[in-house]
Amino acid sequence: MNDGERLVGNLPLCDASEVATDIAADETLLVSGFGSVGYPKTVPLALAASNRDLSLTVISGGSVGNEIDSKLVEADAIARRYPYQARSPARKAVNAQEIAFQDRNISTLGDEVQYGGLADGGTAVVEALAVGTNWLIPTMSIGQTPAFVESADRLIVELNRSVPTAVRKFHDIYRPERPPNRAPNPLTNPGGRIGDERIEFDASKLVGVVETDRRDQPYEFRDPTSDDRAIASNLGTFLEDEVRRSPIFEESLHIQFGVGSLGNALMSALGDADLGSRDLIYFGEVIQDGLLDLLDEQKLTAASATSLALSSEGQKRLFDNLDRYAKDVVLRPGDLSNNPTLIDRFGVVAVNSALEVDLFGHVNSTHLNGTRVMNGIGGSGDFNRHSPLAVLALPSTADGGEISRIVPMVPHVDHTEHDIDVVVTEQGVADLRGKSPKETATAFIEQCAHPDYREGLREYLDRGLASGGHIPHDIETALDWHVNRT
Amino acid sequence: MNDGERLVGNLPLCDASEVATDIAADETLLVSGFGSVGYPKTVPLALAASNRDLSLTVISGGSVGNEIDSKLVEADAIARRYPYQARSPARKAVNAQEIAFQDRNISTLGDEVQYGGLADGGTAVVEALAVGTNWLIPTMSIGQTPAFVESADRLIVELNRSVPTAVRKFHDIYRPERPPNRAPNPLTNPGGRIGDERIEFDASKLVGVVETDRRDQPYEFRDPTSDDRAIASNLGTFLEDEVRRSPIFEESLHIQFGVGSLGNALMSALGDADLGSRDLIYFGEVIQDGLLDLLDEQKLTAASATSLALSSEGQKRLFDNLDRYAKDVVLRPGDLSNNPTLIDRFGVVAVNSALEVDLFGHVNSTHLNGTRVMNGIGGSGDFNRHSPLAVLALPSTADGGEISRIVPMVPHVDHTEHDIDVVVTEQGVADLRGKSPKETATAFIEQCAHPDYREGLREYLDRGLASGGHIPHDIETALDWHVNRT
Repeated sequence: MNDGERLVGNLPLCDASEVATDIAADETLLVSGFGSVGYPKTVPLALAASNRDLSLTVISGGSVGNEIDSKLVEADAIARRYPYQARSPARKAVNAQEIAFQDRNISTLGDEVQYGGLADGGTAVVEALAVGTNWLIPTMSIGQTPAFVESADRLIVELNRSVPTAVRKFHDIYRPERPPNRAPNPLTNPGGRIGDERIEFDASKLVGVVETDRRDQPYEFRDPTSDDRAIASNLGTFLEDEVRRSPIFEESLHIQFGVGSLGNALMSALGDADLGSRDLIYFGEVIQDGLLDLLDEQKLTAASATSLALSSEGQKRLFDNLDRYAKDVVLRPGDLSNNPTLIDRFGVVAVNSALEVDLFGHVNSTHLNGTRVMNGIGGSGDFNRHSPLAVLALPSTADGGEISRIVPMVPHVDHTEHDIDVVVTEQGVADLRGKSPKETATAFIEQCAHPDYREGLREYLDRGLASGGHIPHDIETALDWHVNRT
Repeated sequence: MNDGERLVGNLPLCDASEVATDIAADETLLVSGFGSVGYPKTVPLALAASNRDLSLTVISGGSVGNEIDSKLVEADAIARRYPYQARSPARKAVNAQEIAFQDRNISTLGDEVQYGGLADGGTAVVEALAVGTNWLIPTMSIGQTPAFVESADRLIVELNRSVPTAVRKFHDIYRPERPPNRAPNPLTNPGGRIGDERIEFDASKLVGVVETDRRDQPYEFRDPTSDDRAIASNLGTFLEDEVRRSPIFEESLHIQFGVGSLGNALMSALGDADLGSRDLIYFGEVIQDGLLDLLDEQKLTAASATSLALSSEGQKRLFDNLDRYAKDVVLRPGDLSNNPTLIDRFGVVAVNSALEVDLFGHVNSTHLNGTRVMNGIGGSGDFNRHSPLAVLALPSTADGGEISRIVPMVPHVDHTEHDIDVVVTEQGVADLRGKSPKETATAFIEQCAHPDYREGLREYLDRGLASGGHIPHDIETALDWHVNRT
């Protein structure tokens, strides 16, 4: 590993503060990063420290670290932010209407930036492990970087020496053609490769290369709770039956898990399920520690994602065994990791969590009480909508049992009744496929809701049935559980 | 046209009443049909007249005629119904909880039936214009018939002599492979052909062929209203700008319109828009009369759909000029006409209507006041979700102005804020791309809402902003406009 590998050719090396000065006060920054890794760090910090009056638009691939969503926010430098944020300062500013935030799906964001008018030119700020005069190699995530680099007018590269150059071995970078001449995506299995480890760009766009060895802020996964374990056990039992029922799973099970501690715990626990001789293959958004466990136990054949979102222990494990993991793990752009047609093509089972679900199968993933955004929809909309078997996995209550996550009507809908197939809580499993709204409600109440809330939900359903209609809501009291909460 | 073409080989010809007797009382019937054409007629009528105690499950491709959704319903023969219904008796029975109905997206229904457990075997009842011992040719729609024929245990064919055999020239039938070995879909343009005019089947499934010359019930389109014309004009102006802005539309505009009188009127009016030298190509769900106008005026290069849903005048026009229209029009299965990756690949602009939309971009297409289902989501969920430019086109009011279609909160969500890009009413256009919820609400109020309702909506937004949060809802009064309506 030397400069000949990392910095190739005659490059405009500069300080972060220097390059930051050149960024217009109302610039659109298209930043690399997904799953809180692979995002630029020193340029945002330099902007935050610049004492300028900034009103930036910041578009990332997915979640990024404190350097952007804390420091830049605290410097009051961000006016507009897409598509996802997961840090407290950004969340507070968005909920206070100080930052204009629009929550977007992951799979389509690249096209929205490049063709949809979400950004007009702008400056791409991209973390790389190596850079040449007309190419760069991303670090721990790919996210929307290929689309950002292609559509931006200017490009700033942060060369991060803390990331081993061998991380390039995970990368498979492919940017689809512009519609209507977009070719059929040729990927035929999640472990396959159809692209390159590099992102190429027009050399004239490159305005600066900044060097750093600042590390990502690693994920911290909490230990599984007893609810997590009960959900994992219910999910395992359901999947054991389902793989034997549907011809899609005759030879293999392709699966995705949502980001976070519950997803990580479910992923780990999947190793205990009896899947017969089926291959287990991961096609999802992020690689979390639980997946490394499955790879170490040789229970996983291949894994495809757009980010290595690991704990510091997981990251060390990955770096220490890079060549071994790179045989089975592929990192792709977010529009491929979450691609509708690939999720359909491989028959990927989607397992995602949410804040709450209502009696008729509508799901709120993003807005507490319908108003205060948490992080954003992330990839859950892509996987729930396109999976042949979308599983919602969540505890039946929140706040130590004070709140039921199964409610009469959700005050915000991210996933509709048309998208969710099965709901799993620590109480049990409700299979919604083919059920009418009334049947769905009964299954939720009797199989998924916490016993403390069943009577209240039954009373609501009775009121709805008395009101009449296909979906037996009682509109007058539909949001009472949320009104009383505010 | 003779029997040698229509009935090929040694076929089990029989009466409808005969074949109906053999259908089990609780059978699952997988019926052909989409857009109220191409559905079986005499077997359902025979079942309705049989005086048996039936509790059938009826799964269609899309909407079907009175023979199924009126006569069979009135005979109390249907216990369960998917994915869409558009006749008053079926609607009433669903809303009275007499029929268990689940509303499903079109693009995924074939897989749900074949792999997802929505049907276990069952009997396919399919209208054909010709049939052999191991093949059939559908009539005026393809719908989900290929998947139904493949997954059913038994097959009954209704040979309909009223449909010209030359209608076969429209057909391009392709059934994707089973996941996870589903190959990339090879279609590279809407007018292209990748399949066959026939559906093949295992000869042992064929239990009967019934002959008929009973016609479909043609669509009746109302004349465009002044609101329809104003919406068409606003849409045209918006599209004229947009095709010049986005590189996706550099050479051509691919577009879809929703089913119904408004969609038909918008389609017709599109011929007046100044699209420069761009090719206009239709990639949608149904061919309506408005499209024949565009074809006649040579303003349309090609049209792809799953159903010829025409008025009786339109049907006559089609039949009289079959060879000419068949050069430019292709009928495909519903999972291809509405295919997520094809909508994305061709960059199809989606134009669909709805019952109502709320201040933050959530759309109710299906349930009046959140409870009483109208028809179903149909293809709107497929096109809105996967289009790079999803346009919602609707009048700002309903019931002669008594009700605003722009409301504080919709009581049922079919399409989320993540899916809709632009809203057009007779008042104007709101472009939601990149807007925060607060900005979206303001655009709706000032540009799309009817003046009579603007003040009420402004007051609601103010209450929401006082409550705080990213989406400024006032949960306590969010559904008041609907409560007062019940």
